[in-house]
Amino acid sequence: MSYNTFGRNFRITSFGESHGPVIGVVVDGIPPMLALSQEGIQAQLDRRRPGVSAYTSPRQEGDRVTILSGLLEGQTTGAPLCMVVSNRDTRTEDYDSLKDLFRPGHGDISWFMKYGLRDWRGGGRASGRETVARVAAGAVARQILAPLGVTILGHTLEIAGVRARSFVREVIENNALRCADPDQIEYMEEAITSASQDGDSVGGIVEVRASAVPAGWGDPVYNKLDAQLAGALMGIGAVKAVEIGDGFIVTRMRGSEANDPITQEGFATNHAGGILGGISNGDEIVVRLAVKPTPSVQKPQQTVDTTGNPTVISIGGRHDPCIVPRMVPVAEAMMALVLVDNYLAQRALRPQ
Amino acid sequence: MSYNTFGRNFRITSFGESHGPVIGVVVDGIPPMLALSQEGIQAQLDRRRPGVSAYTSPRQEGDRVTILSGLLEGQTTGAPLCMVVSNRDTRTEDYDSLKDLFRPGHGDISWFMKYGLRDWRGGGRASGRETVARVAAGAVARQILAPLGVTILGHTLEIAGVRARSFVREVIENNALRCADPDQIEYMEEAITSASQDGDSVGGIVEVRASAVPAGWGDPVYNKLDAQLAGALMGIGAVKAVEIGDGFIVTRMRGSEANDPITQEGFATNHAGGILGGISNGDEIVVRLAVKPTPSVQKPQQTVDTTGNPTVISIGGRHDPCIVPRMVPVAEAMMALVLVDNYLAQRALRPQ
Amino acid sequence: MSYNTFGRNFRITSFGESHGPVIGVVVDGIPPMLALSQEGIQAQLDRRRPGVSAYTSPRQEGDRVTILSGLLEGQTTGAPLCMVVSNRDTRTEDYDSLKDLFRPGHGDISWFMKYGLRDWRGGGRASGRETVARVAAGAVARQILAPLGVTILGHTLEIAGVRARSFVREVIENNALRCADPDQIEYMEEAITSASQDGDSVGGIVEVRASAVPAGWGDPVYNKLDAQLAGALMGIGAVKAVEIGDGFIVTRMRGSEANDPITQEGFATNHAGGILGGISNGDEIVVRLAVKPTPSVQKPQQTVDTTGNPTVISIGGRHDPCIVPRMVPVAEAMMALVLVDNYLAQRALRPQ
Amino acid sequence: MSYNTFGRNFRITSFGESHGPVIGVVVDGIPPMLALSQEGIQAQLDRRRPGVSAYTSPRQEGDRVTILSGLLEGQTTGAPLCMVVSNRDTRTEDYDSLKDLFRPGHGDISWFMKYGLRDWRGGGRASGRETVARVAAGAVARQILAPLGVTILGHTLEIAGVRARSFVREVIENNALRCADPDQIEYMEEAITSASQDGDSVGGIVEVRASAVPAGWGDPVYNKLDAQLAGALMGIGAVKAVEIGDGFIVTRMRGSEANDPITQEGFATNHAGGILGGISNGDEIVVRLAVKPTPSVQKPQQTVDTTGNPTVISIGGRHDPCIVPRMVPVAEAMMALVLVDNYLAQRALRPQ
Repeated sequence: MSYNTFGRNFRITSFGESHGPVIGVVVDGIPPMLALSQEGIQAQLDRRRPGVSAYTSPRQEGDRVTILSGLLEGQTTGAPLCMVVSNRDTRTEDYDSLKDLFRPGHGDISWFMKYGLRDWRGGGRASGRETVARVAAGAVARQILAPLGVTILGHTLEIAGVRARSFVREVIENNALRCADPDQIEYMEEAITSASQDGDSVGGIVEVRASAVPAGWGDPVYNKLDAQLAGALMGIGAVKAVEIGDGFIVTRMRGSEANDPITQEGFATNHAGGILGGISNGDEIVVRLAVKPTPSVQKPQQTVDTTGNPTVISIGGRHDPCIVPRMVPVAEAMMALVLVDNYLAQRALRPQ
Repeated sequence: MSYNTFGRNFRITSFGESHGPVIGVVVDGIPPMLALSQEGIQAQLDRRRPGVSAYTSPRQEGDRVTILSGLLEGQTTGAPLCMVVSNRDTRTEDYDSLKDLFRPGHGDISWFMKYGLRDWRGGGRASGRETVARVAAGAVARQILAPLGVTILGHTLEIAGVRARSFVREVIENNALRCADPDQIEYMEEAITSASQDGDSVGGIVEVRASAVPAGWGDPVYNKLDAQLAGALMGIGAVKAVEIGDGFIVTRMRGSEANDPITQEGFATNHAGGILGGISNGDEIVVRLAVKPTPSVQKPQQTVDTTGNPTVISIGGRHDPCIVPRMVPVAEAMMALVLVDNYLAQRALRPQ
Repeated sequence: MSYNTFGRNFRITSFGESHGPVIGVVVDGIPPMLALSQEGIQAQLDRRRPGVSAYTSPRQEGDRVTILSGLLEGQTTGAPLCMVVSNRDTRTEDYDSLKDLFRPGHGDISWFMKYGLRDWRGGGRASGRETVARVAAGAVARQILAPLGVTILGHTLEIAGVRARSFVREVIENNALRCADPDQIEYMEEAITSASQDGDSVGGIVEVRASAVPAGWGDPVYNKLDAQLAGALMGIGAVKAVEIGDGFIVTRMRGSEANDPITQEGFATNHAGGILGGISNGDEIVVRLAVKPTPSVQKPQQTVDTTGNPTVISIGGRHDPCIVPRMVPVAEAMMALVLVDNYLAQRALRPQ
Repeated sequence: MSYNTFGRNFRITSFGESHGPVIGVVVDGIPPMLALSQEGIQAQLDRRRPGVSAYTSPRQEGDRVTILSGLLEGQTTGAPLCMVVSNRDTRTEDYDSLKDLFRPGHGDISWFMKYGLRDWRGGGRASGRETVARVAAGAVARQILAPLGVTILGHTLEIAGVRARSFVREVIENNALRCADPDQIEYMEEAITSASQDGDSVGGIVEVRASAVPAGWGDPVYNKLDAQLAGALMGIGAVKAVEIGDGFIVTRMRGSEANDPITQEGFATNHAGGILGGISNGDEIVVRLAVKPTPSVQKPQQTVDTTGNPTVISIGGRHDPCIVPRMVPVAEAMMALVLVDNYLAQRALRPQ
């Protein structure tokens, strides 16, 4: 699978550019007779939407989802569901000065080398705006997983090196940073503000956990559940690393420490992050993703134009000094898409 | 794509269990009229082979590749290439005592939950022996990439927390650990020996670099080049994290630091690891993978048997106390497979 | 590939129901920097549109295409192209009486068995209206093939047993039946009129030819070019048979007759229909498809309702008594989609 | 999916050339815990084997299947099953004189144009010998379908224009032609003998029926069950047409005749061949395939050599004057592969 399609059994195909009329997604492989909640989809899009705090881009997108196909009286029919969200409040003029420049840290230069041209209007297809499609489709996936008891929860683990040390679930959606540690929020905020005042940006780490995933999901060998998750999450723009369970830390443990003891009540620890041999083991699935600092910064940067002449660029416009909190619903959506795909695969393999 | 198949344009399908007659792989999508070097394939398999040092499993595998199809007078024909390697020196009796036990840190329990049974003979399909197929197929991929100047080089960056601090290319294949820092080899060796004496094991970090990859390879959006690499590398058994370029470190930089300045001579730095917006930018591609400590350890561990009764397990047999060095050729192979796949994709997109 | 996606390298994903707001299609894998003619797409949709003659459904659809993504200043960018066509002039009330009945010859009963429900509004996703997506996507494919000199031409070979005996290319698009034999048009018309007056319908045969297809396109073994064409064309609703070249007639020839002699100027005959061993041989590709009579007829028919009770059905509403002529652009579109897919595949295999 | 892989959920990947050491196939997606009968596989291969009558090639192949992977104590494990059959009794010298000639009616010229070279040894990968893989894999598929009551039965409907008029099931496997009409066998035999004496060959029609297929199998729109069957069957070498149900005959019926009335006991007729709207309707699935006469004939034929010079070719060696009877198990196998794939897909969609 490739191009703009993700998934095998539950499959999404997205389209649309940042400054085009819409971002859209076709979701195929939805089991029939599911009473789909449009509100549930909208709620996830609202979580992703910018402009909800001082630390995110003030662009007002609204992002109301419209369903173009796939429902009969509110129920899925087995036909593909197409959802579109209009692009409003685009300011293409903000990008006029960037038209012939390659922004450092962006895909401008590599996309140009690939295609021979690039859509410079707001980043075109490379814009983070594309994640609208992921979140909308992921919201459908969540509604299929929900009756199984599977819940997916993400949070901001770290911003600019400031790491959450406690986990208070209720706090997450009640602060603009989606940080689960009430004591670290202000230090994270300070780091963002400080960078922003310098015309600069910061990155961080997102953690996503999936609970109550049944044992047995995932494909062994090449398409392990963790391999799928790593591909899905690394496929989000700005992500530069993915860990499962203890991730890099486990490399410094000994085998006797790293192995999770198996008891009659389940695993005594969860260093593995819920996946063994590429297949879910029934424990909580835990992943972390490294998000690089927003590449669009006001600070002057060295670059070249499309004809190869050196120049200096300073990127204005509306850009989040830190996109980590907005990555949370996107990462959750990708987790949901991977899980539902494997759920359907396992039904084919062993339907009981 | 799924099951035991990897790749879209250049596609491998592997088969075989650890204690079955062979491990094999069908490689499809090889361009025709390539003068394939069987020696080149064998050389890679020899690099992967155990028993080459005191730190790796003493099982003598030989691992001579036999090509069953796809060649005419030494040239590829466009037909699928099937390669098999016999499994010799298997000692199924070593596993008799493990038949009804779930080994901690292994996929035994999750595979059992998935399939309702598991092949306990040497790990069956879940054995690291399966990587024979990856390495053989990757060696074919390398021969397609070589005329383009693309070279792929892996090394052991860290073992048990001991990290290489220098990079001397010539050293890598001249020490059993594949460490590029001549000064750290002995400390890594000590860590392995110490763990081994305790009936325990250690993990580490592998780094792989691909040079001279043309700009423009990779699919944007879901199937970014880094997403493909992350999926490919996380799909190797025992890998728990993957980083591209600076990976987790980049989350603590500011945007102005993390962005690689673009000059007329190319990028001034390579924090991005050769990939921007999911597409190769012409710079060196750099990935790192976290390898957990070998889960098979002699130290007694708590577990349950297949009927759920608690017990204690101590795993004998021949197991590497550290598999990190043997991961190097496997990781290189996966990198080669991903790159050649994207090379062919880019030829379809823009053949000139 | 499956669900609502067709193609591997050039890939379309369609969505929308007959009585939903739109029929749409996402076309992915379009090479970049193609100056796309929207008029060219509209022209094909106009050819497909009903209401253009006395023999086709009087529903006025308009069928103006809107492009939602994938273009920059009229050029393709490598991003997916989404096209939608609004559904106007739907009369859902025409279907009210059919809501709980299974129409004979339709997919009502089988779709109901598959999904547990069915979209009864105008046939939902099973409606022939879905071919809007095929024709729009096929028109894009044609624009990629055109610079290679490849042309695709379909015509009505037979209606209700009345078979064209001559082939006058200029006549085809100048008669409502798309018949290439000026002498048979009136007999075909009579057959349709007669059936229509009886509240009944007729079927026929469409032939499609592709000229100037380079030799070497197609995948051998399972995915032969003729296998792909057969799958593509049989996948159009109402098609019950597909022939390549001489098709069934060739079964009554001897080998020495059926084999096309090879000369320095090319093949002396073309019984094979331009495909040998599953790969294009450079000669004209010729396929024929059998179209069953429109299943929606006024004549009373025996059926059951969704609860299993027997009843009699008489289908009113607006239905073509013969859909064969409207199948011509649809079949051409599927031919174009298959060809462009194989063109891109061959570029990957041998780019020169 | 493409190259040498067939299927989505139940997937086969084959390899091997006519005169290479083996023909092999990897079958992936087999549900676990199936007690696989190797005898059942061998029995199907024996049905396919040449040399069983005066009308088939006298090459003695033996064709004993060896299973290289995927079983544990006779049970499937969810791992891929690799089966190989050795190529014995190859006479590559028979092909020496053909090395530089393009045989009319064969894929020699088109494969050469595609790949730039061709494996001339016994047809290489293009040989009918490749069907060993299909039959072996199909035999596995049949064993999955059998517990559902699904049976697949093929027979020779027509040879050289001589058509069976009655259907006596017991007769089929008791005559070398696999003809179900005891009265037509001798006329078919005469036609074959006559052609053979003239150094020529004949073709015919195979019919395959699948009984007890549950309603609801198949994908609507592009990947209809009949579309899949058409692609699968047209992908067999020498097949030039495929019909479902009444096929071409239905084009001469009126809608009121062609529609199968629906009664409480099921369909009153089966013109549709068990598929409506692309999905199985519970009735018997009926397909027919047109098999062209064997292209290898002794009669002199006009051709060119690989440098383009005109010449005359007369093909000796061991070739069936009529391959229709041997197509029967191959066509059955393809039917089985398509059905099992859709069975697994339907389990994913609606597992109950």
